[in-house]
Amino acid sequence: MTLDAVLSRIDATLPEALERLFALLRIPSISTDPAYKADCARAADWLVDDLTELGFTASARPTPGHPMVLAQGGTGDRHLLFYGHYDVQPVDPVDLWSRDPFDPAIEETPAGKVIRARGAADDKGQLMTFIEACRAWKAVHGRLPGRLTIFLEGEEESASPSLVPFLRQNASELTADLALICDTGMHESRYPAIEMMLRGLLAEEVTIRAADRDLHSGSYGGLAANPIRVMTRILAGLHDDAGRVSLPGFYDDVDELPDAVRAQWQKLPFDHARFLGDVGLSAPAGERDRTPLEMVWSRPTCEINGITGGYTGAGFKTVLPAEARAKVSFRLVSRQDPEKIRAAFRAYVTAGLPVDCTVEFADHGGSPASIMDISDPAFEDARAALSEEWGLPAAYIGGGGSIPVAGYFKTVLGMDAMLIGFGRDDDNIHSPNEKYDLESFHKGIRSWARILARLV
Amino acid sequence: MTLDAVLSRIDATLPEALERLFALLRIPSISTDPAYKADCARAADWLVDDLTELGFTASARPTPGHPMVLAQGGTGDRHLLFYGHYDVQPVDPVDLWSRDPFDPAIEETPAGKVIRARGAADDKGQLMTFIEACRAWKAVHGRLPGRLTIFLEGEEESASPSLVPFLRQNASELTADLALICDTGMHESRYPAIEMMLRGLLAEEVTIRAADRDLHSGSYGGLAANPIRVMTRILAGLHDDAGRVSLPGFYDDVDELPDAVRAQWQKLPFDHARFLGDVGLSAPAGERDRTPLEMVWSRPTCEINGITGGYTGAGFKTVLPAEARAKVSFRLVSRQDPEKIRAAFRAYVTAGLPVDCTVEFADHGGSPASIMDISDPAFEDARAALSEEWGLPAAYIGGGGSIPVAGYFKTVLGMDAMLIGFGRDDDNIHSPNEKYDLESFHKGIRSWARILARLV
Repeated sequence: MTLDAVLSRIDATLPEALERLFALLRIPSISTDPAYKADCARAADWLVDDLTELGFTASARPTPGHPMVLAQGGTGDRHLLFYGHYDVQPVDPVDLWSRDPFDPAIEETPAGKVIRARGAADDKGQLMTFIEACRAWKAVHGRLPGRLTIFLEGEEESASPSLVPFLRQNASELTADLALICDTGMHESRYPAIEMMLRGLLAEEVTIRAADRDLHSGSYGGLAANPIRVMTRILAGLHDDAGRVSLPGFYDDVDELPDAVRAQWQKLPFDHARFLGDVGLSAPAGERDRTPLEMVWSRPTCEINGITGGYTGAGFKTVLPAEARAKVSFRLVSRQDPEKIRAAFRAYVTAGLPVDCTVEFADHGGSPASIMDISDPAFEDARAALSEEWGLPAAYIGGGGSIPVAGYFKTVLGMDAMLIGFGRDDDNIHSPNEKYDLESFHKGIRSWARILARLV
Repeated sequence: MTLDAVLSRIDATLPEALERLFALLRIPSISTDPAYKADCARAADWLVDDLTELGFTASARPTPGHPMVLAQGGTGDRHLLFYGHYDVQPVDPVDLWSRDPFDPAIEETPAGKVIRARGAADDKGQLMTFIEACRAWKAVHGRLPGRLTIFLEGEEESASPSLVPFLRQNASELTADLALICDTGMHESRYPAIEMMLRGLLAEEVTIRAADRDLHSGSYGGLAANPIRVMTRILAGLHDDAGRVSLPGFYDDVDELPDAVRAQWQKLPFDHARFLGDVGLSAPAGERDRTPLEMVWSRPTCEINGITGGYTGAGFKTVLPAEARAKVSFRLVSRQDPEKIRAAFRAYVTAGLPVDCTVEFADHGGSPASIMDISDPAFEDARAALSEEWGLPAAYIGGGGSIPVAGYFKTVLGMDAMLIGFGRDDDNIHSPNEKYDLESFHKGIRSWARILARLV
């Protein structure tokens, strides 16, 4: 059986695969810091060279920021697009690292061998699992596993300013039958998983003003409107006592989970006590009648992410400030329309203003939830492949956060995405001492080989 | 009649009185800025010299900060203490001044002649009204008007750090039968007035914490407690829909106004539309069933003076912050006990904390309301004197703010104070282009002469 041959090849060539990953990890491609611009270009070029050697037609495409790597190769009925990103987070504070973040090494830990370096898990190690699977496949089969486009971004860690324009300008090359994204993790760090729903996000900034200047509470306190009091009263009214969002119509377009998904989630192990305990908490604080997984993956929320007004320095000033400001965001699910929710929010705030108070809103963006169509048989195929590799049933899971590229693939290119990744909760991405388990890398490569065997 | 002789003398020597005031105004005694330390000492010395020349036994007493001026003189049954302060506010932004703030001059304005300089109204011009009254008295009578202690502070504009220790250490010299304080204004800028009640102040800082670090709302939103949400809900609960403070027991020690005072206040002209319109407001925002004057002078309040939490910079971050912080103050009246209110506030906040949230309180001070005993005949004497001088009935008024020295005279020295001043609302104290009306200065001197004639 040729899949076995591919898997054996992966096992036998793991040291060489690691050498290649280390070479990529040694390039400090920090996208947010202009001092590393040449390094970002170098990482892109390294990938172009590697993909070219592997038989792809590859190039680094310039953008106003860092280049995009685009590689095309293979033939087949189903066109798959693979996405990863070669840029990494900054490394500060560097003195908290146990070693040079750009001098990768295998370290022995009580939990097993890990690859220690900035970018090991996010996302160089993950993107290389796919490329190494292609390499082993080609070595065994003499050709790439089907019709593939590989698309590697260099600005994911700096808000992807060039992404949407690039997708629009290159839509014909990039639009495939399905996207594969490797930038996520295992469920509970143990179970292979496909993220099949991601919450959307709506962000608003609210400024409430009253008097045309700061007032002294000795002269005006009790008589003049205080924007902080108005703001706290309005924000406090956004939730009811059961933790539900009180905006009229907020839940109109929220679907209950499909029974099959709910049943699967109920069987999923999730230690919410550990999840909360890791950050010093003990009990879920959300809607009373929802399980913790439901709360984070499939329920909409409203949070206040920032608030400021009046005197906030040391000591005390008895000021009645002229204005108060808050940043409010909503995580959206199902068919919730960001602009409809935005309108409801603005109407609610405006209706709560007392005389003499005015409000100004700033739009900080909005995107709907992404829900993948798992009726596409490719999803069940991938799930079966993952279950085989890991010896544990792979799960469809949700994602509490937004992964913008998945949304853009859908909204700009009309393409669903399978989000499969092998990260662990303790990988320290965005923090000192980032690592990627050697097992994640090795079995990640094997996972993609098994998935590709079923999809091509 | 010798009072007439004193008043005539005041009128005749006004130019010389202005020259003396200008000499004092030329000294930039900015107490909060260490660069002006020598100037503060120079202003104190100038006053010591002037008071010595006038027959007082005067000295500048050192403190850890700026010196206190203490002068004693005259004889009589009633010992009066006069308080003023010789330090001034900073002058920034100096380019908004129409002239050098320390080069005083008489300016013609549509509303009459004004003395333009930093400190003209706050408080050098006001304190000199009393000293000039003494000077004219002495010129006519050959002696000072009764037993007087003059006490001039140099740190009033920088939070009076040395005041209470100085009062304690010099209690026997400073304790008099009654204090006279000249650091306030005319009612509606027109009516002579005695402030007979000042609100107290209680200040608290509240920090609410949940998780032991900032969380990402994609991972934890809807599941983890958000300290800003907890804070806004708790703060919003401090008032009921009628604008009353909801703390249990808050109004227990709040007395209704004596009928006589209420009747007088109801007759007092007060253009609250103008008062609010000056700062861009149109309607009172406090308790529904109180007049604007009652709200500001005699009703307790709760205000949020500052709030901060989460991300408050440009753009947006979907953070669930580890903590939120607020500064909350209460203006207190009647017999309200700051420590009792503090305890009620802390109990209320603590009771409102959900699981996993903790609170820390910081005490930013507390002082009860000051209510003068106007049954002392000196008050009616002073009121009659003021009414005579200004040709308008003098009023007992309240003060929305706290004047700490009046409270300390009461709590440290057991002495009531009569707060009489001649400032106007448009004097721009603490702002560029400070001024003191020439009429305030001239009739202020005459007012003190009339008051002293009745009190000695």
